[in-house]
Amino acid sequence: MTPTIYILNGPNLNLLGVREPHIYGHETLDDVRQSCEAQAHSLGLQIDFRQSNFEGDLIESVHEARDHAAAIIINPAGYSFTSVALLDSLKAFDGPKIEVHISNIHKRESIYQTSLVSRTADAVIAGMGLRGYLAALKEVADRLAQNNA
Amino acid sequence: MTPTIYILNGPNLNLLGVREPHIYGHETLDDVRQSCEAQAHSLGLQIDFRQSNFEGDLIESVHEARDHAAAIIINPAGYSFTSVALLDSLKAFDGPKIEVHISNIHKRESIYQTSLVSRTADAVIAGMGLRGYLAALKEVADRLAQNNA
Amino acid sequence: MTPTIYILNGPNLNLLGVREPHIYGHETLDDVRQSCEAQAHSLGLQIDFRQSNFEGDLIESVHEARDHAAAIIINPAGYSFTSVALLDSLKAFDGPKIEVHISNIHKRESIYQTSLVSRTADAVIAGMGLRGYLAALKEVADRLAQNNA
Amino acid sequence: MTPTIYILNGPNLNLLGVREPHIYGHETLDDVRQSCEAQAHSLGLQIDFRQSNFEGDLIESVHEARDHAAAIIINPAGYSFTSVALLDSLKAFDGPKIEVHISNIHKRESIYQTSLVSRTADAVIAGMGLRGYLAALKEVADRLAQNNA
Amino acid sequence: MTPTIYILNGPNLNLLGVREPHIYGHETLDDVRQSCEAQAHSLGLQIDFRQSNFEGDLIESVHEARDHAAAIIINPAGYSFTSVALLDSLKAFDGPKIEVHISNIHKRESIYQTSLVSRTADAVIAGMGLRGYLAALKEVADRLAQNNA
Amino acid sequence: MTPTIYILNGPNLNLLGVREPHIYGHETLDDVRQSCEAQAHSLGLQIDFRQSNFEGDLIESVHEARDHAAAIIINPAGYSFTSVALLDSLKAFDGPKIEVHISNIHKRESIYQTSLVSRTADAVIAGMGLRGYLAALKEVADRLAQNNA
Amino acid sequence: MTPTIYILNGPNLNLLGVREPHIYGHETLDDVRQSCEAQAHSLGLQIDFRQSNFEGDLIESVHEARDHAAAIIINPAGYSFTSVALLDSLKAFDGPKIEVHISNIHKRESIYQTSLVSRTADAVIAGMGLRGYLAALKEVADRLAQNNA
Amino acid sequence: MTPTIYILNGPNLNLLGVREPHIYGHETLDDVRQSCEAQAHSLGLQIDFRQSNFEGDLIESVHEARDHAAAIIINPAGYSFTSVALLDSLKAFDGPKIEVHISNIHKRESIYQTSLVSRTADAVIAGMGLRGYLAALKEVADRLAQNNA
Amino acid sequence: MTPTIYILNGPNLNLLGVREPHIYGHETLDDVRQSCEAQAHSLGLQIDFRQSNFEGDLIESVHEARDHAAAIIINPAGYSFTSVALLDSLKAFDGPKIEVHISNIHKRESIYQTSLVSRTADAVIAGMGLRGYLAALKEVADRLAQNNA
Amino acid sequence: MTPTIYILNGPNLNLLGVREPHIYGHETLDDVRQSCEAQAHSLGLQIDFRQSNFEGDLIESVHEARDHAAAIIINPAGYSFTSVALLDSLKAFDGPKIEVHISNIHKRESIYQTSLVSRTADAVIAGMGLRGYLAALKEVADRLAQNNA
Amino acid sequence: MTPTIYILNGPNLNLLGVREPHIYGHETLDDVRQSCEAQAHSLGLQIDFRQSNFEGDLIESVHEARDHAAAIIINPAGYSFTSVALLDSLKAFDGPKIEVHISNIHKRESIYQTSLVSRTADAVIAGMGLRGYLAALKEVADRLAQNNA
Amino acid sequence: MTPTIYILNGPNLNLLGVREPHIYGHETLDDVRQSCEAQAHSLGLQIDFRQSNFEGDLIESVHEARDHAAAIIINPAGYSFTSVALLDSLKAFDGPKIEVHISNIHKRESIYQTSLVSRTADAVIAGMGLRGYLAALKEVADRLAQNNA
Repeated sequence: MTPTIYILNGPNLNLLGVREPHIYGHETLDDVRQSCEAQAHSLGLQIDFRQSNFEGDLIESVHEARDHAAAIIINPAGYSFTSVALLDSLKAFDGPKIEVHISNIHKRESIYQTSLVSRTADAVIAGMGLRGYLAALKEVADRLAQNNA
Repeated sequence: MTPTIYILNGPNLNLLGVREPHIYGHETLDDVRQSCEAQAHSLGLQIDFRQSNFEGDLIESVHEARDHAAAIIINPAGYSFTSVALLDSLKAFDGPKIEVHISNIHKRESIYQTSLVSRTADAVIAGMGLRGYLAALKEVADRLAQNNA
Repeated sequence: MTPTIYILNGPNLNLLGVREPHIYGHETLDDVRQSCEAQAHSLGLQIDFRQSNFEGDLIESVHEARDHAAAIIINPAGYSFTSVALLDSLKAFDGPKIEVHISNIHKRESIYQTSLVSRTADAVIAGMGLRGYLAALKEVADRLAQNNA
Repeated sequence: MTPTIYILNGPNLNLLGVREPHIYGHETLDDVRQSCEAQAHSLGLQIDFRQSNFEGDLIESVHEARDHAAAIIINPAGYSFTSVALLDSLKAFDGPKIEVHISNIHKRESIYQTSLVSRTADAVIAGMGLRGYLAALKEVADRLAQNNA
Repeated sequence: MTPTIYILNGPNLNLLGVREPHIYGHETLDDVRQSCEAQAHSLGLQIDFRQSNFEGDLIESVHEARDHAAAIIINPAGYSFTSVALLDSLKAFDGPKIEVHISNIHKRESIYQTSLVSRTADAVIAGMGLRGYLAALKEVADRLAQNNA
Repeated sequence: MTPTIYILNGPNLNLLGVREPHIYGHETLDDVRQSCEAQAHSLGLQIDFRQSNFEGDLIESVHEARDHAAAIIINPAGYSFTSVALLDSLKAFDGPKIEVHISNIHKRESIYQTSLVSRTADAVIAGMGLRGYLAALKEVADRLAQNNA
Repeated sequence: MTPTIYILNGPNLNLLGVREPHIYGHETLDDVRQSCEAQAHSLGLQIDFRQSNFEGDLIESVHEARDHAAAIIINPAGYSFTSVALLDSLKAFDGPKIEVHISNIHKRESIYQTSLVSRTADAVIAGMGLRGYLAALKEVADRLAQNNA
Repeated sequence: MTPTIYILNGPNLNLLGVREPHIYGHETLDDVRQSCEAQAHSLGLQIDFRQSNFEGDLIESVHEARDHAAAIIINPAGYSFTSVALLDSLKAFDGPKIEVHISNIHKRESIYQTSLVSRTADAVIAGMGLRGYLAALKEVADRLAQNNA
Repeated sequence: MTPTIYILNGPNLNLLGVREPHIYGHETLDDVRQSCEAQAHSLGLQIDFRQSNFEGDLIESVHEARDHAAAIIINPAGYSFTSVALLDSLKAFDGPKIEVHISNIHKRESIYQTSLVSRTADAVIAGMGLRGYLAALKEVADRLAQNNA
Repeated sequence: MTPTIYILNGPNLNLLGVREPHIYGHETLDDVRQSCEAQAHSLGLQIDFRQSNFEGDLIESVHEARDHAAAIIINPAGYSFTSVALLDSLKAFDGPKIEVHISNIHKRESIYQTSLVSRTADAVIAGMGLRGYLAALKEVADRLAQNNA
Repeated sequence: MTPTIYILNGPNLNLLGVREPHIYGHETLDDVRQSCEAQAHSLGLQIDFRQSNFEGDLIESVHEARDHAAAIIINPAGYSFTSVALLDSLKAFDGPKIEVHISNIHKRESIYQTSLVSRTADAVIAGMGLRGYLAALKEVADRLAQNNA
Repeated sequence: MTPTIYILNGPNLNLLGVREPHIYGHETLDDVRQSCEAQAHSLGLQIDFRQSNFEGDLIESVHEARDHAAAIIINPAGYSFTSVALLDSLKAFDGPKIEVHISNIHKRESIYQTSLVSRTADAVIAGMGLRGYLAALKEVADRLAQNNA
């Protein structure tokens, strides 16, 4: 059976490609989704790609992933830095968890530097733009293969 | 008239009994609800037992309690540590407010040690598991009796 | 065409006039809305006045404002101090952004003193009660006139 | 054999009921002792109820409890916040340890907010006045029953 | 009798309009004075408009206001962040006190973010440029009317 | 009846005059006692002069003072900086409380600079050596006279 | 020759007795001056009693004291907490330096708790009201006598 | 011409595969080198793979890269957290700079959480083990292609 | 005359060998005493070996040592981190002062890392178990020999 | 035309050569002025040399320099560490600004280590005594020559 | 086979006996080496005694010790406080690790108080001068004997 | 004999004139060396001009200077902020020590603001570019002349 990977996107990411394109590039979140689908397909995976501006929605997607997903890729955006509740939900997910940030958050002002989610993520990728999602999918595929080996 | 007690449960508590049972025990949130109902009944109270992963839902339940509840018992879980908005809503509730935590949060890593909600709660019970809810109900009953005396 | 101003109100503001009237006064949020409508009318503006207890709702109203509003007036209440996500959404709005607080938050306990939203607001008005909204509308009108000049 | 519970009270608690009755109520420490004895009796327990203003006395009571007590209930009062030595003694006690505070310490000025003793206590009850001791006894009984089950 | 409002301006504000006009605009302090006079006249108030680079002068103006002014509007500029003495003088003034900053200080580097004067001001207006003084005068008029009502 | 003043001396003060005389002078604690007795006599007061190296002893002297003393003069020495329990005991004493330090503690290394006892003392005298006790007695006499007036 | 003592009073002390009499009492600064003159006379001293709201004035009075005064008594008020320059000037004065505060500053909010002047003062008296000045004069007399002995 | 990528490895990485294999895996640094070579080859790149335990060596490799490398991939290991000098050298390199950590440093104790090197890196990959290097090479290839496009 | 060395042991050390033997080993405090006696004898010294759970007792033993001991070896246990009073007493002892900790306190949680006593100790030995006492005795013997040379 | 350089000296510098000569040397401020005049003359510059103990005076000298000086050399003394207002005035001066300290402030206690003025100064010279002024004049001459080149 | 003990000395220790002999004594590092050799011989050990001013050298000596040494004694001198890389290398050494400091670092200024190396050392000896090395050798011998027993 | 001055340059300074010329200017380190040689010659001094990217090299140059140099001028660059070991080596050099920084480090981000080396330097010059070295040589010449006078 093709494993499903949840790809969760946090607040304001629906504006990707529209907001400050000189920083975040011209690719929209839909472009990200399509690239991820292609990449997943080539890796023998399928994805469930979601975005929400609600902390509660993201938490419930993580809960749902417990039953339906083999791994989670999450770009928690603004909730990275403030949501203990999201961190707690992710702690309750046993599969691989990869955190992705489009920009290198460690270069930004101090409120953007310390992600709570990183306390439970297996790996963190920051600053690779859309390509960060693809690298995360590759990492997930490798980890799942490793676990099955 | 039988007084109603709102028992509010924050994010991820829907996973109780399922998530990390060696820490949180095997009782589910539904077990908690049933025990609370029995305890409430024996104390001459009735309960309205809710769980939400949304900060806004919890706030609106607190608002609703202003008209329909004699007291609030709340386990704010991850929002304990981050929600000024939930704190503000509770400040606007005049009846007894008891805060419950299943584990002793004061023994955990620093991000879990300081509850904002404790700034307005009348009493705080931590580390007594499911029994913490029952002790909170008992405390509510005693406080209501005292106020009526 | 009459420019629309979004006036966004954060958590617990639906209790205005009811909660602690000795502090916040007896005017309700509906009174605020009506005063704002009158003031907007006299300034050649129209308003879209909203309140939500959900962080995600406020973020989505800000997103919507990108297409439908000439300016935003926001009283983020409890989310002022904790929401990086709301801050991020406001950074993506290009028109005038005025932050309003009913009380002078700088006189309160430390958790209420540093608004994240102030990092992107053009102007901040605190401590003027209902009148703060009217002054904010006046400021918006002046800024829009200036931009058109 | 009836298990013995040590109930240890820290500095200034001998003034209970006399000092600031508008805050701490009119019940004296002797009232607390009598209520605890009654509650213990009904739970099939007996208590050894002590108060001392000396850090060393409290430590030695904890040592003594290693041989004579099934559980400890402790209200460390002012030593909660400053005594690493008392914390260390409690770490060497293997049975249930319940920490009780008459008022909700988390609402007080900062020097009263962080109890060192909470780092080793199994559970913490704050803000329930005299009733906190009774809830602690109930919790002890439940834990002992559980251990014997 | 026409109430007098003291409008006090702190250090370096004599350079307004001359210093960094791209930030502070081209209006001089004299322009501010004239606009304030017009606004005051239309509100049935008169103003006493002063600027000083000396902390002691500002303090003595506040003392003088105790006998001669119905309200104080103050832009403490650089002394906002360092003068406990100016704060103390304002605490001794009983009428309305409105603090004005031309730019939004909360967006600036950390030494400019926390005004000591805000601890006693009734209201704070930041980021509205010259218009901040006019809004402050309007607020003063409304507060005086309210007090007389 | 001649009012009694408790003069309490904390840890290591029994070494006064012996330890580091170039700093603390050559007067012993007995010299201090004798000077205090003479001064008290001339002011129509009598004193109960004590020293202890035990925190618990000092607390119990404060408790005793509740019934037997009109005022307390205390040099808490090393316990000034660490004893919340001693602070709590003094909060329960209603008469005048004067804190005395032989040296000016504010000039010393940081661990000696912040006295917890100062949070409840009515007045603090530091750096006047033995004379600090005499000034404290004079202050007590004046306060008692004032209260009786 | 009768030694002269400079008694320097910092900002806002000219309002003494007028401002918040329930806290600072009804005695004016002129009352303080007269009491000090009487006390000085009885101790064989004369005083030069000054008040200024200007940091520079206080510094220059300290400089002048180098040539004309045997000792300085200073109540630096608001400058206590912020003036490194005043501290530096006092470091250059070799005679006895006594710091006086009318209220017990150590009980106040944090910005009022740490006096820079205390780093060089020989003694500090806080919380004794007008009597603090008289005790300071007595201390000066004793120190001068001691130096002459 | 085939672009050269410098892959720099900091202190203790020569022990990879030998030290704590349960954490860092069984692959040695030579395995990493070989995998990188293969990956580079398939991407049309060549690599210069180095390890040093000397801060100065790493700095000089970065300097050398200015003339000989199209991009730098660096795992600064222990120097990540302490070397301002290494950070400065990297600031002087204009091509793509990717920082790699074998484990997720953000989950470790505080001294390992804040990398100075991240202040200048374009992207950061942590927690992907050996695969992190391969993803970094892929990222470099994509960035170089993009720059050439 | 054989010099006497005071060996002082702080709170909870009476439980040595009993409490957490996997950490602290199986040797009891009496074993430590006997080893110290043997070691002292071989070095031409005699010891006075004490343990107390009371801060005041330890302080008074230090005072007594001023007259009866040539050196002090102290394991202050929990009071290491909190007792300014014990630190002060040791400052008044002129002979060699060696501080011993059974475990390496610097590896423990933060509350156990900074010993106040180390501010006055001549040497500190941590992590050598019972052998730390013997090394301390050897150090004392060497220092006394050196002083006599 | 000979360019004029303002050389501004802050509080207490009028005591130079008189106060603590073992630290600050025996040269008076007048000696500094004369050396500066000679040095300026040889560099084709003229100086306006001032000292004030008033923050406001220094600010107004900086304002005046905007019209009359080609460069500013300033030794802000005690105001270095506390005056945001002085910093602001210097930000409004466009020519070269050199900060001079007679001693090496970075070696002193912490309150003297961080100069606010350094945030805007072009260069800082500390620890070179009177020679620091001469080096500053040389630097000013070189910068003016460079600008004219 | 005689076990080899690596004794590693950090930066500036080559100046021992030459630099500040009043503090560090007159014994040179060569004297330390000779005493260690004698002591090692008597304990049935041999030593490899090294000093380097290079962080990288010390790290590589620790790596080398993995194959050639039974234990490490290290005086990391200035690198104690700054080298995460040295700490990491020591974490990869499994045998006994004893940290030695010639002076009692805990009495020095704050930058010298917290050794990173102590986080992995088994034992720490500070303030015993040359004798600290001998005590460390004795401790190593005892630990090796214990392990072999 | 012509005194020799060591001029030591820390990491990355070999890139001077090449790296970010808009900030650091176009002069290379070799230009600095030549200017220093000329300046030294005219002052009757000779220089030994070195650069290293290795902390250990700089330390050993300082050691060497003990025998061969009359003074040290050092630009520690990135090691200024992190090297306790370099600070320690400089403390062991008795002659004049002048610290030079090309840019004004006090205006940079916080990690570049506090130089450890400044704790032992006699004087610090920052922000004068190449001219800072020449001013330092002049200062050295003056100090040596003074010492010989």
